[in-house]
Amino acid sequence: MKLLEERILKEGVVINNDILKVDSFINHQIDVDLIKEFADEVKLHFKDKQVDKILTIETSGIPMAFAVAEKFSNVPLVFAKKSKSATVDDNVYKTEIKSFTRNLVSVVTVAKPYLKKNEHILIIDDFLAEGNAAMGLIDLCEQAGSVVVGFADVIEKEFQGGKNRIREKGIDVFSGAVIKAFENNKPIF
Amino acid sequence: MKLLEERILKEGVVINNDILKVDSFINHQIDVDLIKEFADEVKLHFKDKQVDKILTIETSGIPMAFAVAEKFSNVPLVFAKKSKSATVDDNVYKTEIKSFTRNLVSVVTVAKPYLKKNEHILIIDDFLAEGNAAMGLIDLCEQAGSVVVGFADVIEKEFQGGKNRIREKGIDVFSGAVIKAFENNKPIF
Repeated sequence: MKLLEERILKEGVVINNDILKVDSFINHQIDVDLIKEFADEVKLHFKDKQVDKILTIETSGIPMAFAVAEKFSNVPLVFAKKSKSATVDDNVYKTEIKSFTRNLVSVVTVAKPYLKKNEHILIIDDFLAEGNAAMGLIDLCEQAGSVVVGFADVIEKEFQGGKNRIREKGIDVFSGAVIKAFENNKPIF
Repeated sequence: MKLLEERILKEGVVINNDILKVDSFINHQIDVDLIKEFADEVKLHFKDKQVDKILTIETSGIPMAFAVAEKFSNVPLVFAKKSKSATVDDNVYKTEIKSFTRNLVSVVTVAKPYLKKNEHILIIDDFLAEGNAAMGLIDLCEQAGSVVVGFADVIEKEFQGGKNRIREKGIDVFSGAVIKAFENNKPIF
């Protein structure tokens, strides 16, 4: 998505050639029209797939997941919840996810009624870096016996390897923008 | 909203005549079509108001805030962030909000660039109970010198008094469903 790349170049802030802050249009303030355009692209990419449910993880994946859910007909959105302790309700699927940006492990859960056996799930997130969140969400789906039909993220940092981890599971990946590297704190597409 | 009331009666779980769980269609799994209908009603209610920005608070206000933002043209969404510690970035507006359901005080922030003087703000949230979140978000707007043109929530628990606190500030309130009381763990509209 050309518009997205231009916006990243204009407003993104790269920290230590590693972390990209996009708080002005993705992660704190959200450019609704840009996210809707991303959702259009996701719908186009996965148009031939059966999608029964959209899954994301709180917090910053929710706006784009909602926008994508709107593109499919009568498809609910579920967001996985993060907690700091392992003492959670028994009636949940549970996994651990290490946050790339915060170097912190969260227990991530989805209540069992909201992921069903053989349900076709499209996973959405804001970023794809090492793929830890994606792999955690895939794990939750596997526990439920649901089928992950794809993963889509707004911004991928390709050099951090997440895409390959997801593809090794046979899951199709779509990214709104693919950053090949950071050079002198500038993204290279 | 008749459909929303019916859904609350069918799927809502009332705990201790006090807390309403709506995880199956609002707070964990989200009925996207129902939220879009809520957004239509909000747009209708505030159609004569100038709205420059939608403000909500993470996490569960985000889907409905996104849906409402879509109804206005070219209006960004900002979500206030919760943190447990007061050691946050200096470049933020900051307030404290006590969670009604969790009895926990959070420091809530919006980065200064994302709330501007004289900007017209419509605040959206999933619930209106005692109005603590609403008052906190209004406080952030007041710090920024922005103008709160309205507050809209999906489900109001009227007997907990939040609406009156917001109206005392001269701010118009719209609720998708208004619960007058819980009787025997059933909502009365």
